[in-house]
Parts: sequence; C-alpha cells; structure tokens
Amino acid sequence: MTATNLHFVTLLGSLRKASFNGGVARALPALAPEGVSIAALGSVGEFPIYNADVQAKGIPPAVEAMGAAIKAADGLIVVSPEYNYSIPGGLKNAIDWLSRLSPQPFMKKPILIQSASPGALGGARMQYNLRQSFVFLDGCVFNTPEVMIAGAGAKFDSATGDLTDEGTKEFLRKHLAAFADFVRD
Amino acid sequence: MTATNLHFVTLLGSLRKASFNGGVARALPALAPEGVSIAALGSVGEFPIYNADVQAKGIPPAVEAMGAAIKAADGLIVVSPEYNYSIPGGLKNAIDWLSRLSPQPFMKKPILIQSASPGALGGARMQYNLRQSFVFLDGCVFNTPEVMIAGAGAKFDSATGDLTDEGTKEFLRKHLAAFADFVRD
Amino acid sequence: MTATNLHFVTLLGSLRKASFNGGVARALPALAPEGVSIAALGSVGEFPIYNADVQAKGIPPAVEAMGAAIKAADGLIVVSPEYNYSIPGGLKNAIDWLSRLSPQPFMKKPILIQSASPGALGGARMQYNLRQSFVFLDGCVFNTPEVMIAGAGAKFDSATGDLTDEGTKEFLRKHLAAFADFVRD
Amino acid sequence: MTATNLHFVTLLGSLRKASFNGGVARALPALAPEGVSIAALGSVGEFPIYNADVQAKGIPPAVEAMGAAIKAADGLIVVSPEYNYSIPGGLKNAIDWLSRLSPQPFMKKPILIQSASPGALGGARMQYNLRQSFVFLDGCVFNTPEVMIAGAGAKFDSATGDLTDEGTKEFLRKHLAAFADFVRD
Repeated sequence: MTATNLHFVTLLGSLRKASFNGGVARALPALAPEGVSIAALGSVGEFPIYNADVQAKGIPPAVEAMGAAIKAADGLIVVSPEYNYSIPGGLKNAIDWLSRLSPQPFMKKPILIQSASPGALGGARMQYNLRQSFVFLDGCVFNTPEVMIAGAGAKFDSATGDLTDEGTKEFLRKHLAAFADFVRD
Repeated sequence: MTATNLHFVTLLGSLRKASFNGGVARALPALAPEGVSIAALGSVGEFPIYNADVQAKGIPPAVEAMGAAIKAADGLIVVSPEYNYSIPGGLKNAIDWLSRLSPQPFMKKPILIQSASPGALGGARMQYNLRQSFVFLDGCVFNTPEVMIAGAGAKFDSATGDLTDEGTKEFLRKHLAAFADFVRD
Repeated sequence: MTATNLHFVTLLGSLRKASFNGGVARALPALAPEGVSIAALGSVGEFPIYNADVQAKGIPPAVEAMGAAIKAADGLIVVSPEYNYSIPGGLKNAIDWLSRLSPQPFMKKPILIQSASPGALGGARMQYNLRQSFVFLDGCVFNTPEVMIAGAGAKFDSATGDLTDEGTKEFLRKHLAAFADFVRD
Repeated sequence: MTATNLHFVTLLGSLRKASFNGGVARALPALAPEGVSIAALGSVGEFPIYNADVQAKGIPPAVEAMGAAIKAADGLIVVSPEYNYSIPGGLKNAIDWLSRLSPQPFMKKPILIQSASPGALGGARMQYNLRQSFVFLDGCVFNTPEVMIAGAGAKFDSATGDLTDEGTKEFLRKHLAAFADFVRD
C-alpha cells in the first residue's frame, strides 16, 4: 500500500530577506518525507492592514488567493518569529483577513507551527498565542514535538538566512514526518 | 494641594469607522477626571507591515511621531477589539514598529487596556495576550478593575459607533480615575 | 447503521458540595446523546499535593485508578471553575499526578472542557491555561463551540448546585453531541 | 543616604527534596544585595486541597500564617518549576487558599518570579500563567529581566539540588538587586 500523497503550504511570519524563519521555510521542501510536497504561500506583506470597511467593499485578491491555496492544501505550516512575546503583527493581520473568507480556510485544517529566534525560547510565546487563535478558527494544530529553534544565530547563515545546522534539519525532517502521519490519520 | 495634571494618549486597535472601540476612545476625553486630558494617537493603519529590511533604511515618520507622542504622555490607553482570540494584527504591527524605536516608548509607561466586543467575553483574550507583550516591553499595565465591554451591540450606536450606554460610561469614568491614581502613585 | 457506543468520564475541578460545576457534571449523563454514557471520576480532593519523592515510593492508588478510568474512556470531560484567572490548584494537582503515569492517560485522548462561574467570563481564562497543559500531554481538545457558563448565580440552584436553566441544558446537549461526533470522526 | 532595609519571602513551588527550584530558593539569601534579607515561607505541601466548604468552617492556620508573612514582607519571590506547561497544582492551590484571606496578601505586593527546569524553556509557560493570576490578585509583578533557568541538570548538584553554576548565581544576584530597586521606587 502506498501512503496518500500530501501537499502542504507554508505561511511565513517574517518579511526580512535573510530571516531565520524564511530559512526554515525554504528548507522544508527538501526535508519532506516521500509523497509530501511543500510550497510557499504568498507574502503577508501584500495585505493591507485589516479594516472591516475595506472588507465591505471586497476582500483583496491576495487574501482570496491565499485562502484558496490553504483550502486546497492538506496541511498548513506556519513558520514565524516571535515579536514582542507574541505573534508578529503582519502574520496576525494575514490571519485576520483570511478569517473573514467564507468559509474561512483554517476550519478543520491540520496545522503545524515552527519558529526560530536568536533568543533562548525559540518563539514559544508566539506559538501559544497562535494556538489560541486557532481554537476560535477550529484548526487542528499538531501538538508535539514542538519545533522552537533557539539560538538561531549559530544555526543559520546570517547573510542569507539559510539553515545550516544539521541537527535542526534532522529535527525538522522528523517533525514533517510526524505531521504527515497526523494528517493521514 | 492640587493633583498633578496628566496627559494620556489613546491607541486604537480598529480601523472601522463605526467601530465600538473607536466609540470608546472618542468617549474618554469627556469621562476623564479633572486635570486629566486625553488625546488620540494616529491610526495604526498608517504603518506598513513591519519588515526589518525596511527598518534598516529608516523607521517610518508615522512610527517616530507616534512613539514621540507616547513618550511625552503620562500614560497610554490601548482601546482595541479582539480578532481571532488575540490582538488585531494591525495593532500588534504598530506595537512591533514602536518597539524598534530607541528607546522604545513603552518602558515604564503606565498602560491601561480597554476593549469592547459584540461577544460575551468583551475582548478578554486580546487583553491577556497584550499584557504578555508589555512584559517584554516593560510597560506598567494597570491591573484591576478590567474593562471588557461585552454585548457591545446594545451599548453603542451601530451607525456611528458612539457609546450610548450610561452604565458603561460610568464604569469608564471610574476606570480612568483609578488609572490616574495609579499613574500619580 | 448504528453509531458506536461511547463512554465519557468527567473530571470535576471543584470540591464544594453545591458547586455550579458539580451541577454541570451531574447534569451531563441525562443530556448525553443516544449511545453515550457518562460517569464521574473520583475526586481531585483524594490526591496528596504532588511530590516527586512520594512518587518515587509509588504512585497513590487513587491516581492509578483515575488514570485507568480515563484510559478506558472514549473521551474526557473536564468541568471546572476558574480560580484566580487560571486552573484550580486541586485540578491541576490531579493532572500533574496523572501525567506521571506511564503511559500517561491524556495522550491522543479526546477532551472536552466546560466551565461555569458567577462572573462574566464563565471560566474562559481557566480553559485556555488548561488547553496549554494538554498541548504538552498531547490531548485532542475539542475546539468549538466552547461552553463557558457565565452569570451562574441565576442558572443554578444555589443550595444544591443543580443546573436549572433550560437554555444552558440545551447548549450542553448540543455540546455533548458535537463532542461525540468529534470522537467518532 | 542609606537605602531602606527590605525583607523578602520566598514561596517554593516544588516539594521534592533535591528540587532545582529549592536550590534556587536556598541560594537567594546569600545573593541578596546589602540591606535585603530573604526568608523561606512554609511549604505548599501543608495546605489541603482548596474546598470552599472547608473554608466556610475556618481558613487553615498554615494559610493564615503564610498570608501574614507575605503581608509583612516588602516583596514576594515565587520560585517554581513548571508542570505540564503551567503552574504546579500545589503552588496554585496555595495561591487559591491565600487569595481567600481578607485582605488577600498579594494586593499591590511587589512580586518576583524565578524558575528552573531541566528543559529548554526554563519554566517560561508557568511564569506567564502565574502572571495572569496576579493580574486578578493585583500584584505588582516585576517585568524584566526574567529568570528562567533552562538546562538545570548541568547547573545544580543533582543529589542535593544545590545551585552550583556561577553564571546563574551572578544572574540571580543582579535579578535581586533590580527587584530591590523596583520595590524601593
């Protein structure tokens, strides 16, 4: 028997070119288990700041497109830094827009969260706040193991943001495999 | 003896014209105790989505201006809805930008949080996530009583967002007086 | 086709005889959908305060018994008040003990959370802290709708704690049905 | 000018004899700045599981005594492990009991939180849940720097729990000095 092919999409919380989290997201396709493809969603920087009056005139095409890509995917992987002990505003703004689609794309969607930071906690506080948003949005967030890459300065190429640490790559490989099992269950 | 005059500024988390939270913010100056003036900060909709590469080229003037106004104030009042069980992305994005100023404007700043929502919890989940951000930013967030205006549909004019409920006005009046005492302490 | 019969167990966070949450837990068996039985677990008051040195000499029989009952059940329903904006110490202490069983009984277990309180938030803050514990324990916590019974003083018999409000009963009936569907999925 | 003498008390969240957090609490008196004395409160293991029916017959003497010691102190230092991503049940149970004293002892009390754990996050999740309880209890919780001692296995004597790591001692020394400044402010 062959396992079902799966397609995941990554939503990136940072806009910085050499972002560590961008490096994680770029590394994922090559670390995915057999039968799993991973593609990047558009940038959260394309969305205006959410405004219900703007929404009333029509949801921006970039929001519609990202929503459709999430709906079509078998799973969503959010890769994001932590800003000020919580979710980066730009990422949360994207989620706020996407939540206004009907139906909203997170419902019953398997979701994996990964984060990297130069600090000691690796983005943990961002992850728990994000999990709380996905309670409302009824996402199926994978529990454990959690990937919080601390001390990112030593694990990434600071000029490009590329992930260089082999141990972290191996952990991500296992994380993706466990998430694929979770999605197929 | 006369109490020191105080000046507070309000940071609004919603961009909607008839926003309930906008109605709260507009009501505050008239509800302030004697000797306390309250003025609105600029709109969080004026800020681009935070990007460290953009920051490297220069912090946007709107961020600098808002930061200076917060620094000059005796206290900051954040008035915001809850989006998806957390901080609205646009508000968090403004805080993320402001946190990059040097010195950042929230340090040791007395902060009051207020929220209104049509739902039953009145923005509580947003408030606790916001408090967590202000731990990092070393703000002095006022504890209790907390103002979480639930069932906002019946307490505001839905066309204008103006606060009409007298009980809520009275509660806000007491909240501002307690915050002024906290700031003067 | 007949749906699988299911058996749920309730873990109660309050020890007070006329507890509102006790009233919720007692009401549940009669509100369960066809094919679903619900039984009460033992009292969290039977457990000593967790101490790893005590654990090293042997896990208390009451902990073993509760763990076995949870493992044998198709789902766990936690019904609890909120104390001081978080999980009651006694309930958390029970979870701490249960988490030391090998295997621990919460892994992959479908979990439903319900709370009642005299206040306006109905135990919301307790629920989100509890959800965080179940991330570590890899429980499958049902998302939405959430049952947070606010203003409990008017919905329960204050002498006995019995649930008297018909609207709340109807909501609990729907909550249990939705949870049964979630467990069978 | 001489700074005011200060007296702090420590509340310990673990009952294990060789607890890392016990090691932190024991180390504090010797690391305190001049003019600051630090004494241990009684054990949270002395309290029964909170029960409002028991409270109605009289608050246990151990609760009264601990409450009086906290009220008499200039600051409270909570030193605790994290259990299941939150506050240890025993510690929370003690806080739940203490919160029923009238007046409750945490109001306006300067509070410092410290934690140690063998894991990577050092007790962070416990700290944020604890902060939320102290919002309700109107404690003045010190913000930053935060002391979350990760990888405790290498920093303590595993047989006794004594803190051996010099860098950690130095960090605690600075933490106490910053807290003393905060209390004197």
